[in-house]
Amino acid sequence: MDINLKETERIDDLQLNGLKIIQDTDGFCFGIDAVLLANFANVKKDNLVVDLGTGTGIIPTLIAGKTEAKKIIGVEIQQEVYEMAKRSVKMNKLEDRVEIINEDLKEIDKILEVNGFHVVTSNPPYTHMDGIKNLSDKKAISRHEIKCTLEDVMKSASRLVMPRGKFFMIHRPIRLVDIFMLARKYDLEPKKVRFVHPKPNKAPNLVLIEFMKGGKPELKILDPLYVYEENGEHTKEMKGIYANEGMLIK
Amino acid sequence: MDINLKETERIDDLQLNGLKIIQDTDGFCFGIDAVLLANFANVKKDNLVVDLGTGTGIIPTLIAGKTEAKKIIGVEIQQEVYEMAKRSVKMNKLEDRVEIINEDLKEIDKILEVNGFHVVTSNPPYTHMDGIKNLSDKKAISRHEIKCTLEDVMKSASRLVMPRGKFFMIHRPIRLVDIFMLARKYDLEPKKVRFVHPKPNKAPNLVLIEFMKGGKPELKILDPLYVYEENGEHTKEMKGIYANEGMLIK
Repeated sequence: MDINLKETERIDDLQLNGLKIIQDTDGFCFGIDAVLLANFANVKKDNLVVDLGTGTGIIPTLIAGKTEAKKIIGVEIQQEVYEMAKRSVKMNKLEDRVEIINEDLKEIDKILEVNGFHVVTSNPPYTHMDGIKNLSDKKAISRHEIKCTLEDVMKSASRLVMPRGKFFMIHRPIRLVDIFMLARKYDLEPKKVRFVHPKPNKAPNLVLIEFMKGGKPELKILDPLYVYEENGEHTKEMKGIYANEGMLIK
Repeated sequence: MDINLKETERIDDLQLNGLKIIQDTDGFCFGIDAVLLANFANVKKDNLVVDLGTGTGIIPTLIAGKTEAKKIIGVEIQQEVYEMAKRSVKMNKLEDRVEIINEDLKEIDKILEVNGFHVVTSNPPYTHMDGIKNLSDKKAISRHEIKCTLEDVMKSASRLVMPRGKFFMIHRPIRLVDIFMLARKYDLEPKKVRFVHPKPNKAPNLVLIEFMKGGKPELKILDPLYVYEENGEHTKEMKGIYANEGMLIK
């Protein structure tokens, strides 16, 4: 296949319907967060989906492989990362269902239809930009709130998702108060929260949240998700998630 | 001792410094919630403490027994329940450190000093008042938001606690979004959250929250607290909490 790889890039086999993904070992590789979010997002047949800050395109690729979504649009602000994601889509022959757009998510409602999507997903940058030195660094942009804040992401999600539609996000528990405040501000009611714990007796370090646009206030905290058993092995559930998403545990 | 008991009342030995508590088997008995909250509340030497909606007075009594708090004031709106709590204080000879006030917590800042307390605690009614038939029923008043709403409790807590002082509350996870919204409204920043799970693989059914008045936004989710092991026995931690609070597990 005529896929050009840069020096620091590699192709990873997702073990899911033959899908592969290009990653930049020097810049940005997807993590467990994206895998958990793609598993958590409840996407139905013929759904229209947007993934905000798509990075390598891992979430649209997994959703395309696992669901009967009609169209999944990944939005990525960084041109180099966008081009890499586009090459993954081409390599996977998913052009009819997955589209990658090189755009600032703050401007996305000028390009995509407001209230036009059943589902929005996002695995946004987690960290405040305090102390970041190199603001043009690809990794820093993906991980810190340099190009977009949590509020930008939630505002855009709210604009794009249709009434009663769902927004699925993964983030850090440390921001949960801010997340809930912004959710109410942008009419995205938190309906389900699932905490992800490294081990059963450890505090959660990630949180999966399902919001419903215009939903009624009533939060359900789901059973906890434990990544590892006390003995350091992946839990049965985590193995199941990797297996469903096709990924081999390394 | 000249403690008068009504027909439906009984005295329970708290197994802590000889402390006892009067409970009304027909009305209101304290539950695991009060025990967990008294354990969670971080009360220091010479602290001034208020417990809003004190019921039997169990929380002031446990705090008096476990800490070197200077004064703990329990506020109870129901006269019969207030009188029962007062009798417990007298029976325990705690009159110099524990005071029970028969007052509506919505009016409490007319009686107690605004910004005057290091710590406020509350185990408020959990349930919306939809569907309650007998609005004068003691149990209903203690468990449903009949006489005070969640907002009333948080507003009063914010009025009473001093800047940088702490408010400790136990509630249901289903209200977590509302709790965080009200917290920001009344300048009580959620700093620590501890979810209480019936068992390790089950969703939490209670949540302990530490707020700091005027605190900086940064939420710490603590390690989960599991009440029972998979085999139905209390966990080691839960046994420790009951032991510290002096209570025998029945």
